[in-house]
Parts: sequence; structure tokens; C-alpha cells
Amino acid sequence: MEQRVSLITLGTLDLARARGFYERLGWQGQEVEQTVFFQAGGLVLVLWGREALACDAGVADDGEPGFAGVTLAQNVRSKQEVDQTLAQAAAAGATVTRPAADTFYGGYAGCFRDLDGHIWEIAWNPAWRIDERGLVTFAI
Amino acid sequence: MEQRVSLITLGTLDLARARGFYERLGWQGQEVEQTVFFQAGGLVLVLWGREALACDAGVADDGEPGFAGVTLAQNVRSKQEVDQTLAQAAAAGATVTRPAADTFYGGYAGCFRDLDGHIWEIAWNPAWRIDERGLVTFAI
Repeated sequence: MEQRVSLITLGTLDLARARGFYERLGWQGQEVEQTVFFQAGGLVLVLWGREALACDAGVADDGEPGFAGVTLAQNVRSKQEVDQTLAQAAAAGATVTRPAADTFYGGYAGCFRDLDGHIWEIAWNPAWRIDERGLVTFAI
Repeated sequence: MEQRVSLITLGTLDLARARGFYERLGWQGQEVEQTVFFQAGGLVLVLWGREALACDAGVADDGEPGFAGVTLAQNVRSKQEVDQTLAQAAAAGATVTRPAADTFYGGYAGCFRDLDGHIWEIAWNPAWRIDERGLVTFAI
């Protein structure tokens, strides 16, 4: 698994309120299907409904071992790399919370939970560019 | 506030176990005073004791509105920018959980909590380089 982070997704109970907050800080986001994307240097910060985020990660948002309301993601360059990375994480002791599968946006992704409960999605998204340093650019 | 993220800190209940996990994924970190730093593209991913992380952020790790066990940080270019950013966040509705103050490493930093409870530290650290794109490089 490469040593980099592509997305940070912050769960919110009120997307409009959360977006308004970051816009008052001077950030400019783009909303796509009830999800707000902010290009933030070489990664993308995302606001998304907390319940949808938990569901998407394959975990329950109902207590211990609690869902933190935050997930990380790494975009990789192929479907095969998604499978390899999830297998590597499982071998290292992680729990695969969502097996790799095709996604609605034409990609392929799955999720694991690390030993402290932090969730990572490993995704291949053909629309997002990954540069030679591993930095990603948001695109729809 | 610039639209970028400099650090992601993952709280852990067992630093050696957490470090071992990421090393089994092939990551290489550097431990400094019970904190493990991984250069991860243009940001730095950090492993730190969950209780210390909560305490450092000025929040309690004892239930609702729960501490997520994850914090974000943005490194800025001056002490004045720390003050300005915290004031801007407070004006936007955030709660300042740790007022700006000098840090043990010779910097200056403070923390706020956004409207969903996500915590940001805004830090000036004279040892860390911030490039023209806002990407940071870990240094001690």
C-alpha cells in the first residue's frame, strides 16, 4: 500500500450547515448528489451525511466500537491494486468491512478498519487523476 | 483559511500495535516521543495515543459529543495566521477548544471544533516546510 491519503470524508448531521461553515472559512466546494467536495492541496476533503458514510463503509453508526464519523481513502491505479491492498490490510490484521465491488460511478472499491477502528476506503476511480507524487485531483 | 490539510492524526490505544499495522502495509514511519510520523504525499499521517490526542485538542474523551479519535491540522506560515484563522473559525460558528499558545516544539498553535465536532489544529511550526502548493514535509 502506497504511503499517501487521497480523501478525508467528514460525516455531518446537516450537509448545508457543514458546507456553510467551510464556506465561511473561505473554502469553495462543489456539491454532487448530496456530497460536497473541496479540493484541498493534493487531496480532497469531502462532506457527506454521517449515516450514509457509515453505511458506505460497511459499519454501523450505533455505538461501540463507535464509528468516528471520519474516513480516509486512498485512490489507486487499477482494480487489481484495490484487491491487492485489501488483501494486504487483512493479512496485517485489519477487518474488511466492505469487500471490493464495482461502484455506482464506474469504479471499484472496498473498505477496511484498522486495529483502532479507523476506516480506509481503497478505490479505483477512472475519473480522478493521480499524479506522479500520488496527489489526486477531484473530477466528476 | 487556505483550502488544504497538513496532518491527519489517528488516535490509538496501543502505539506499537498501530505502528506495526501500518508497517505491515509497507509504510515507513519515524517515532518521536511516543508519536509516529508518516510522510504521506503532501501531508503527514500521525499515530498518537488517543487520550493524549484528546487532551491536546482541549476536549474530553468521555462520551457525547464524542471525541472521534481523529483530528486534522493545517500548518500556516506565521503566528499571526494562527490567530487570524482561529478568529475566522470562531466567527463562522466553531468552538475554540484550545486557545492559541506557544508549543513545546517552538511553534504556536490552537484548536477548534467544527459544527459536527470535527477537530482542527491550526499550527505554525518553524521546522516544517510548506511549499508553494501548501504541501508540507515532516521534519524534526
